[in-house]
Amino acid sequence: MKTEIISIGTELLLGEITNTNSAYLASQLPLLGLDLNFISTVGDNQYRLIETLKQAWQRSDIIITTGGLGPTQDDITREAVAELLGEEPMIDSTLVQKFEELFKYYKIEMPPSNIKQATVIPSAKIIQNPQGTAPGWWIERDNRVLITMPGPPREMQLMWTKEILPRLQQKVASSVIVSKTLKIFGLTEAEVDERASPFLSATNPTLATYAKTDGIYLRITAKTDSEDKAKELIAKREADIRAIFNDYIWGMDSDSLESIVGTLLTAKGLSLATMESYTGGLLASVITNVPGSSKYFRGGLVAYTDEARTAFGFDPQLISRYGTVSTEVVEAMATISREKLGTSIGVGLTGVMGPTETEGKPVGTIFVGLNDGQRRQSFAKNYPGNRLQVKQRAVTSALFELRRILL
Amino acid sequence: MKTEIISIGTELLLGEITNTNSAYLASQLPLLGLDLNFISTVGDNQYRLIETLKQAWQRSDIIITTGGLGPTQDDITREAVAELLGEEPMIDSTLVQKFEELFKYYKIEMPPSNIKQATVIPSAKIIQNPQGTAPGWWIERDNRVLITMPGPPREMQLMWTKEILPRLQQKVASSVIVSKTLKIFGLTEAEVDERASPFLSATNPTLATYAKTDGIYLRITAKTDSEDKAKELIAKREADIRAIFNDYIWGMDSDSLESIVGTLLTAKGLSLATMESYTGGLLASVITNVPGSSKYFRGGLVAYTDEARTAFGFDPQLISRYGTVSTEVVEAMATISREKLGTSIGVGLTGVMGPTETEGKPVGTIFVGLNDGQRRQSFAKNYPGNRLQVKQRAVTSALFELRRILL
Repeated sequence: MKTEIISIGTELLLGEITNTNSAYLASQLPLLGLDLNFISTVGDNQYRLIETLKQAWQRSDIIITTGGLGPTQDDITREAVAELLGEEPMIDSTLVQKFEELFKYYKIEMPPSNIKQATVIPSAKIIQNPQGTAPGWWIERDNRVLITMPGPPREMQLMWTKEILPRLQQKVASSVIVSKTLKIFGLTEAEVDERASPFLSATNPTLATYAKTDGIYLRITAKTDSEDKAKELIAKREADIRAIFNDYIWGMDSDSLESIVGTLLTAKGLSLATMESYTGGLLASVITNVPGSSKYFRGGLVAYTDEARTAFGFDPQLISRYGTVSTEVVEAMATISREKLGTSIGVGLTGVMGPTETEGKPVGTIFVGLNDGQRRQSFAKNYPGNRLQVKQRAVTSALFELRRILL
Repeated sequence: MKTEIISIGTELLLGEITNTNSAYLASQLPLLGLDLNFISTVGDNQYRLIETLKQAWQRSDIIITTGGLGPTQDDITREAVAELLGEEPMIDSTLVQKFEELFKYYKIEMPPSNIKQATVIPSAKIIQNPQGTAPGWWIERDNRVLITMPGPPREMQLMWTKEILPRLQQKVASSVIVSKTLKIFGLTEAEVDERASPFLSATNPTLATYAKTDGIYLRITAKTDSEDKAKELIAKREADIRAIFNDYIWGMDSDSLESIVGTLLTAKGLSLATMESYTGGLLASVITNVPGSSKYFRGGLVAYTDEARTAFGFDPQLISRYGTVSTEVVEAMATISREKLGTSIGVGLTGVMGPTETEGKPVGTIFVGLNDGQRRQSFAKNYPGNRLQVKQRAVTSALFELRRILL
């Protein structure tokens, strides 16, 4: 079926943000067997938006819009769609009530403009927004499907996977598509690509690589006439992939390293503390992104200067002898955090985040230290990237090593 | 002048690559005073490309295409433009000679298909490609300008800056567009919209709102015939906006709250420490995202459990009396971090991140404590959102209050 995406928002025409929504949706449509013929980007201009919608309505079977669903005067998607279809927007009292409860909960008065987000036209079904207040619309009319989704990528992607994708699958897919993602850390994307190359050109299941902040993802996708068969195809390919990558695979699908580490610590009844220097507390912050992490994570120390290191009981001689970014110091950091907070395991993390080198060590050098009361271990790595990327990689690296010793 | 970008290439419709060319060109056009009305993305399909070109020719004054200029059968931009204009493509012998010399230089035989890249129509001027073999076309006809550029971003950008931009500047630049962004924290997007509404419908300068993780952005954009006049228009509107939002405005353009706080601390020669509980170290991490932050930030404590609070010298009675999420405790946290690390200022940060309420306080409740040796202060707020959003807002809130007491 001929599919078209319309991205709505003046900010997209000013080059302030790159249109990642279109690329995301474009990558999703092949899973449904839908042919994307056009992506149109149009600003918050009612006349031009309506012209664009009319054209899409003429030439496409499925039209997906993103953006223009906010509460402000700029947000005109609802009005434009109503005009396209010659339908009258009405206020949905259930939605109004929902909004009022939400605002009441946060003890904020609901601005009158928010009512806008509760309007709906007769042929539209309301699609819940799991992440924000702007609901989407699902419209079926004249053998066409028109779907409106919000513009913020997180809201859009969550609405897509939770609400839209399953509906479209039912509507258009005569075949089933099942995917599984394996997550790899410790190899570059090019290395993963090379090792997986025998399978990258296969058509069913297909295999694709994606570089993410927590490593390289390998996605296996099978398309066939039943879910069982698809799962069987995937299981076979997964075995091939696991044979190649083995220990580099740390998780799959929605796993995060911090949740895996949390599960392992909980299962073993162990507790954890951290001491960081140049990652500035990001490791502790990521660990505590997991709900319930207080069961195993007690706390952390962030020593960003010598004064702080001294205040936390660090031997100044160690620093003057080895430098702050060294095996000896990162192991001492692990030990101090463990002793200070009385935990089973202590993790130390330091490195050179940039913009310039530190103590003769290049940007991207990182050290992870671990102490579980029996062993002191440390690992040195080097990652490319800017300050924030190196910081993120350092944290991923620490969690990866922590997982390894817990297994 | 009404401008339109057409991005050509099936790979853009498969989500394999994000359309960065459009975002780049979109960011360039305001410098020329050109209004971008549409971005259209279309695959390597002759019929659909010609339809898209026809529509652009009808509705726009300046049409810029990228992609489809390679030597392969897929590359159909030249043919489609020739058909749009009803002109006959001819081989340009000077170009053929140039290609032959180039291939000779690299000691490669010229593939016959390369002749394609040497075709031109009568109304097109050939634009040199400083980076590859595909030349562009510059066409002026019927009061319109049509420009074709290659798809690879490096080739396109170099051709744009070296060849196209200077020509367009000569051709069209009778006006300039200048923007300024004011950054607001402490109000919802709807509240900002409502207060700014007298100016949201104005046309020059225009005003637009954007919701970001660190607050709401208000962008003022002026279009006039000189940069000075544009800046004057912006300055006037900025004064209107500042009169309305006053203390809620914390910065502008590329400012970040953490860099503003850093600049203030450095200017006053003050040092900083933090103690966090349920934000898990995110505040310290964000503060240290600023290069050179070790000049004022010494370190931080993350107390995620009672054991950690006790280890950091916290009075257990305080917790049992007031709870971990309270004014008294957050002020004590600020004091402890300040004393422990011997800094001028200590910041405490705690709150209920979810997924469930804590000590009878709902998800989204946050407390910021500040101690500068003279005053102990604290602020309570409530934010909507999920765990990660509340955490981010709590950090923004702490930086916002810190900025306030530093001013």
